[in-house]
Amino acid sequence: MSTLNLTLLTDLYEMTMMQGYFKSNQNRTVIFDAFYRTNPSDGGYAICAGVEQVIDYIENLHFDADDIAYLRGLQIFDEDFLAYLSDFHFSGDIYAIAEGSVIFPREPLIKVVAPIMEAQLVETAILNIMNHQCLIATKAARVCYAADGDGVMEFGLRRAQGPDSGTYGARAAMIGGCAGTSNVLAGQMFDVPVLGTHAHSWIMSFPDEYTAFREYARLYPNACTLLVDTYDTLKSGIPNAIRVFTEMRDAGIPLTSYGIRMDSGDLAYLSKQARTMLDEAGFPDAVIAASNDLDEYLIQSLKSQGATITSWGVGTNLITSKDCPAFGGVYKLAAIEGDDGHFIPKIKLSENTEKVTNPGNKTVYRIYDNETGKIKADLICLVGETFDETQDMLLFDPNEPWKKTTLPGRSYHMKELLIKVVENGRRCYTSPSVMEIRTICTREKDTLWDENKRFINPAEIHVDLSQRLYDMKQELLSQHSN
Amino acid sequence: MSTLNLTLLTDLYEMTMMQGYFKSNQNRTVIFDAFYRTNPSDGGYAICAGVEQVIDYIENLHFDADDIAYLRGLQIFDEDFLAYLSDFHFSGDIYAIAEGSVIFPREPLIKVVAPIMEAQLVETAILNIMNHQCLIATKAARVCYAADGDGVMEFGLRRAQGPDSGTYGARAAMIGGCAGTSNVLAGQMFDVPVLGTHAHSWIMSFPDEYTAFREYARLYPNACTLLVDTYDTLKSGIPNAIRVFTEMRDAGIPLTSYGIRMDSGDLAYLSKQARTMLDEAGFPDAVIAASNDLDEYLIQSLKSQGATITSWGVGTNLITSKDCPAFGGVYKLAAIEGDDGHFIPKIKLSENTEKVTNPGNKTVYRIYDNETGKIKADLICLVGETFDETQDMLLFDPNEPWKKTTLPGRSYHMKELLIKVVENGRRCYTSPSVMEIRTICTREKDTLWDENKRFINPAEIHVDLSQRLYDMKQELLSQHSN
Repeated sequence: MSTLNLTLLTDLYEMTMMQGYFKSNQNRTVIFDAFYRTNPSDGGYAICAGVEQVIDYIENLHFDADDIAYLRGLQIFDEDFLAYLSDFHFSGDIYAIAEGSVIFPREPLIKVVAPIMEAQLVETAILNIMNHQCLIATKAARVCYAADGDGVMEFGLRRAQGPDSGTYGARAAMIGGCAGTSNVLAGQMFDVPVLGTHAHSWIMSFPDEYTAFREYARLYPNACTLLVDTYDTLKSGIPNAIRVFTEMRDAGIPLTSYGIRMDSGDLAYLSKQARTMLDEAGFPDAVIAASNDLDEYLIQSLKSQGATITSWGVGTNLITSKDCPAFGGVYKLAAIEGDDGHFIPKIKLSENTEKVTNPGNKTVYRIYDNETGKIKADLICLVGETFDETQDMLLFDPNEPWKKTTLPGRSYHMKELLIKVVENGRRCYTSPSVMEIRTICTREKDTLWDENKRFINPAEIHVDLSQRLYDMKQELLSQHSN
Repeated sequence: MSTLNLTLLTDLYEMTMMQGYFKSNQNRTVIFDAFYRTNPSDGGYAICAGVEQVIDYIENLHFDADDIAYLRGLQIFDEDFLAYLSDFHFSGDIYAIAEGSVIFPREPLIKVVAPIMEAQLVETAILNIMNHQCLIATKAARVCYAADGDGVMEFGLRRAQGPDSGTYGARAAMIGGCAGTSNVLAGQMFDVPVLGTHAHSWIMSFPDEYTAFREYARLYPNACTLLVDTYDTLKSGIPNAIRVFTEMRDAGIPLTSYGIRMDSGDLAYLSKQARTMLDEAGFPDAVIAASNDLDEYLIQSLKSQGATITSWGVGTNLITSKDCPAFGGVYKLAAIEGDDGHFIPKIKLSENTEKVTNPGNKTVYRIYDNETGKIKADLICLVGETFDETQDMLLFDPNEPWKKTTLPGRSYHMKELLIKVVENGRRCYTSPSVMEIRTICTREKDTLWDENKRFINPAEIHVDLSQRLYDMKQELLSQHSN
């Protein structure tokens, strides 16, 4: 992505509005928040991913000569505006929640503070990048939760929605907890483990299955996972695999990383049969890997049935987040700088109370329980508000404010989630490596309770508003209803 | 995509198999077919798209020094194989069904004839590209069918699964029938119409809605679609829009392309109210456009409720094909060159009869009814088979061969669908422009009956096998069952 100019990766209306602001001589600094409203797949949380690509996009924003020529040809844009675009760069600040973090609905994941012409242009690409990577990282976290410590391999490139979807999807899947990806380009770009052995076509290109296995074992004795379901898993595939493993053992070849993979059939039944056959042949450490339309629900079901699979290859359902293929992040105006340099809060109304936006220049704090280290709640507040962890904290539900909880002083601690990643248009933050972000994400998932992570009716982490923010919102609502 | 080196956009197992063939000194020419098994969204057809990107990918295949260095670092590949990769280029032939064509399950969309090392490498990228674009082109065709002649705008970039997903998805959506896209980069890359006016943030950045509308109309009098649902559609948005249109009319500004857009609320009710208000104010030609989580089912429902919307902005559900986000195309070995230079057919078994592959070197013919021009059936046969359109043709269901139909001679005509697009590794086919492919697709959709296009229980177009291909398949099946 970084080698392509993505400046035109935007909706046309961002540019017609941009010219509109230009012609109206209106370029006040504004604040936009990118946030989402509902956890994917009816889950209890999501995982933040994509921030590094947002920073990269912002730093590389520029209209080159071809872009200007193309825009001129649309006959919508005037020469004075095109001249402005020729010199365009992003000059604002961007704040983000760190990649790998657990996130919840309605809290700003990205906050853009910039002149309105710039802030408007970047809406579409920021949403595109964050919506995609948050979605896949979240799905991966769910699949890995179901796998309960077993390795999950991301195998979905062929079913991804285009090259980037496969490659950045693999990045997000690694952040969410996968142990490796089949995608070689993702391995190269993000320095993450790549995995894979052979397909049915390997078996079919030899005169028989045994010869194909024997040849594979000769070539790759140290990573010898044999695909056993080309002809008949129990009658042909596993017996041939055992024959080859036995020959390796008899020849004194150390069997370090070896096993079988099944890509079809009744995986619960077949894996139990396979385990018995491998154990009886003296191969108790042979790994049983499986693939075939797996997702978090199927993995959980197979485990509950006593399947003996300990390595899971997950393709289509992960890389497309098949049951919920869109994250639904939005980008909403929160404030406009007034004549005195202060931000004037803005609100977007909706008949649906939950869709009314939170106005003003905000930040997000996470409140942890000191004893367990688990998350008690998140708090959206105005920038500049301070909190004293030695004092009691009153939390209330912003939609049902009579529902209140008090956290005793010294029982909790708070962490600000939004970090400045771009200042005056330049990167001011170095992202950890993808594998480091994956480690961060593992720690982050540990701050959730199992009750937040289960798939059916997960317990919700409350995202509350500070009293000052709540009062400001009510004030704006009552102004609009007059 | 063409500026990025996508050579490593492959699954690792393609490369471990490739080295395996290299080390086994096995590089016979093989035939792989890419096909799909089930129409998306329980539909009656799909649309072929992505062939141009496949050709581009094939022509640009090469391992550069960084790629080789990366692969060496994996410590899986030997120096002799890496040396081979350094000089790698694709030397085979590729056949494809033309983009914009109507396609059906089990027929080869892409046929690769190449040495097995090359044919194996390209599997993943070919599937990735075709699976994505066929999926979105098909969804677009369905949405446009529901819109029944109204314009459908592709607005999904912000919810697409990454940048390519938005951009190549927009290409596919145009092929499937959309009138334009919001995606400026797609407009630039594919020379397709880009569309869009303004968002809620435009309205909110002005002191009031009327001022925002008036300013927009001043700047863009020739494409003046006003977004009316920021505050209150019926009480504020439409009255303010009518006020601005009236001022334009009074000032003698020609109202050519103008109207309103609604992005929330009960679109059936609101559009009927809006139509009445606009008509009564003397604006019967003001267009009513709508967006908000639309898909083919919702558009059909709104039309059946008498909604007066004539322009449809479709985002998330189109660009992700939300109800069916993966196309499911596969790539299967069909034949291997024998010592005598003839192809030996290969078959992949499955407990599911429909999943047993079709062996051999095949092509596909479409059979049209002479009187109506509609499709009677498709016929998969072996390369070299000839048919005489003056003779009766016996068709039978390959899974239930006792179900037979005879087409009388001179009542039908046939067209071969697979075209050679790459010969000896070089492009031998010039793709039409995207807008030309869109026109082709319009004609193609006209070769279907409405019964094939409906959304619930569509009638199936039969994809039959020639007698020779059927006999060959039965012969291979009986060999394997011994």
